Amino acid sequence: MGVIHRRSGRDWEGVKGWENVRAQQYPDPALAGVRKHELIGEQEGARGYRVRYFQVPPGGRTARERHPHDHGVVILCGRARVTLGEETKDVEEGDVVYVEGGELHCFESTGAEPLGFICVVQARPG
Amino acid sequence: MGVIHRRSGRDWEGVKGWENVRAQQYPDPALAGVRKHELIGEQEGARGYRVRYFQVPPGGRTARERHPHDHGVVILCGRARVTLGEETKDVEEGDVVYVEGGELHCFESTGAEPLGFICVVQARPG
Repeated sequence: MGVIHRRSGRDWEGVKGWENVRAQQYPDPALAGVRKHELIGEQEGARGYRVRYFQVPPGGRTARERHPHDHGVVILCGRARVTLGEETKDVEEGDVVYVEGGELHCFESTGAEPLGFICVVQARPG
Repeated sequence: MGVIHRRSGRDWEGVKGWENVRAQQYPDPALAGVRKHELIGEQEGARGYRVRYFQVPPGGRTARERHPHDHGVVILCGRARVTLGEETKDVEEGDVVYVEGGELHCFESTGAEPLGFICVVQARPG
């Protein structure tokens, strides 16, 4: 049987959350205020991919990192300066970003409103 | 190297599209007006999953179908009546729907504005 998580609020701005989805935060002070919501994954029954929503406050950023798996990103609100390898690009609501496996990446929230984006990743192996 | 597809329009309503992404339509008259945009997939380098955006005009619907692969869906605009097996549920902007593999499903656009949603699926095998 499928699963529905209803959004607790009705716009994309601010931290609203979803029913039965716990927002996760990071202990790293550089990532203060960043929240990750695991919307669809193993818990819902999905074995091939995970769908997450990240919210980053104005002036904040996601982890600056590289790893073997790639990311499929859709910006839902706010603005971002995206690092992709040695390049940076400015993106905004509606833009789509593909982060290659092994590529250094970081999303900085450069707008006055929080940055929010969907980030898809393949499921954990094994 | 990663890829960015910039959205051609700046809101989620209406049919706006993305740079370098061709909207696909369906020959089936029952699916008139439905547009699919393959945002991230093999063409961008993603091998584990595909990220698509579907737009459904008011009164329209997606294919009523079942298949082995599952779907991860995030509603971005509009309203939908979602069929999941023998049940139907009303959902709206921000709601998240997981469609299990093998489950009958259909998204009917029930609002005054077009329905738009992200739909993630695992990559085609082989």
